[in-house]
Amino acid sequence: MWFMRQAGRSLPEYRALREGTSMFEACFDPEMLAEITLQPIRRHGVDAAILFSDIVVPLKAAGLDIDIVAGTGPVVAEPIRDAAGVRALPVLEPEQVERVAEGVRLLVGSLGETPLIGFAGAPFTLASYLIEGGPSRNHEHTKALMHSEPGLWHELAGRLADMAITFLSAQLDAGADAIQLFDSWAGALSERDYREFVLPHSAKVLSAVARYGVPRIHFGVGTGELLVAMRDAGADVVGVDWRIPLDEAVRRLGGGVVQGNLDPALLHGSWPVIEAEVRRILAEGRAADGHIFNLGHGVLPGVDPDVLTRVVGLVHELQP
Amino acid sequence: MWFMRQAGRSLPEYRALREGTSMFEACFDPEMLAEITLQPIRRHGVDAAILFSDIVVPLKAAGLDIDIVAGTGPVVAEPIRDAAGVRALPVLEPEQVERVAEGVRLLVGSLGETPLIGFAGAPFTLASYLIEGGPSRNHEHTKALMHSEPGLWHELAGRLADMAITFLSAQLDAGADAIQLFDSWAGALSERDYREFVLPHSAKVLSAVARYGVPRIHFGVGTGELLVAMRDAGADVVGVDWRIPLDEAVRRLGGGVVQGNLDPALLHGSWPVIEAEVRRILAEGRAADGHIFNLGHGVLPGVDPDVLTRVVGLVHELQP
Repeated sequence: MWFMRQAGRSLPEYRALREGTSMFEACFDPEMLAEITLQPIRRHGVDAAILFSDIVVPLKAAGLDIDIVAGTGPVVAEPIRDAAGVRALPVLEPEQVERVAEGVRLLVGSLGETPLIGFAGAPFTLASYLIEGGPSRNHEHTKALMHSEPGLWHELAGRLADMAITFLSAQLDAGADAIQLFDSWAGALSERDYREFVLPHSAKVLSAVARYGVPRIHFGVGTGELLVAMRDAGADVVGVDWRIPLDEAVRRLGGGVVQGNLDPALLHGSWPVIEAEVRRILAEGRAADGHIFNLGHGVLPGVDPDVLTRVVGLVHELQP
Repeated sequence: MWFMRQAGRSLPEYRALREGTSMFEACFDPEMLAEITLQPIRRHGVDAAILFSDIVVPLKAAGLDIDIVAGTGPVVAEPIRDAAGVRALPVLEPEQVERVAEGVRLLVGSLGETPLIGFAGAPFTLASYLIEGGPSRNHEHTKALMHSEPGLWHELAGRLADMAITFLSAQLDAGADAIQLFDSWAGALSERDYREFVLPHSAKVLSAVARYGVPRIHFGVGTGELLVAMRDAGADVVGVDWRIPLDEAVRRLGGGVVQGNLDPALLHGSWPVIEAEVRRILAEGRAADGHIFNLGHGVLPGVDPDVLTRVVGLVHELQP
């Protein structure tokens, strides 16, 4: 078990460490990213560490003019919407993420038996940031480009897949024990569009890292309709949010290993509510060939970290 | 066929009319709301008018301190999170929405054969605005209250259902020909939670207006898992967004009448893309006992209104 976004704003020690440091400074500082990654391991005793990073880190590393604005998210100076923009997209070289790899090596040295999960954003979600210019509710420019200029779309997504491969390979070469491909916005697509425009590129990423022989987790939100397609992209573990029960997810997948699916919003509820949900989820997860307990999406900043620690204790008590 | 949010920012004549007038001023001015409602009928020739309003209009009418902030959405001065807040929620009296009813009477006089669809926000979506204090991506306080204090939740949702009934009844008494209950955020819930915490209250609204004998449309976004539950709430027509094909929606529903499901983002695409999508959707909609062509969500502000007109022409040509 681990929590998506377990390293971050929910922890007072994180907020203290980050004071006066920008998100990108933290993501490219080997000592700081290692320390932030370790904080939830020490505090909560979760079973895995997830690299502290951001899905736009490889874009920044490659030289793109992008910023992470507090309260907004990633903002791209010049949104990419035409062939010139796509062709101007820089290629990510391994040495540009060397400071992240250095952080991974520090972590592998400190973590001992605790596995480290590497991390990259999937091509669709990265493309949406680049095309929209920032976080988007409707992804209208992305979807319009995808459908109206499919050749250009595939070129852009292919380049982003290459970046994700370089970024993940750097983490795996440095010793990461598993990877998670985040396609945060994939749930905005129909299965038809996902299979045509997105799956080939995510599959390219997942197959390129297959040679490391580590578990590959594939995660999205609101992807109940896409679970089989996301598994078909080459995932060993499929993330499931809270919208469908794990046993139903396993039924759709015909077996396999799933990850999820406590609604992070419920961590704001009372303990009896959380306990009942954890018990239900563990019971439903028994339908799978394997279940990694997690949230259905990331820890929300306002959550009480003691509640997270208590959830870890309960999961370990019920599933030793 | 009609378009959700057909009356609004996509139209230059709307932007001109609204200049210097706040959203609430427009929603409570009978002549202005009637004129705005008529604009897309004149321009696009859609088959139905939808009352220009906002889902928080009944809350404002009842005296709640709420504002609609441009670029943000509804903002509530004092979020409701405890029993005192719930009990202080005012009751909506029919005379408080008399100016909206007057607008409906004006519209019924002008529209001739074109039906007018009335409009209300469903209890869950209204509750989320009140509890979170504004638009929310995660609905964490709403879900926490729902699960941790179910008695209080049901009291709040019951009061909001009463408001929706009063608001819809005022529109129906004034001559509206159909109604749509908008549960914009219901897709954030699992079916289990929807059935336990939301369905009873939406069902109360839909059954209270059954005596008018008009079609009742029930709409949400990302509700592929909830279609049957939303029908079970007492809907004659179930809205379907673009995430699942209409024939699959009809299979889940076991028949019936559906509304949808063009992805509004695709209206930013090229015409051949839009035409192919419209043809596909009309073909898939033939699986239903009836299909109201619409978008899967509202018209986005940046869309070219000529594209909307062209879609209307195509739908009328293909399905005369």
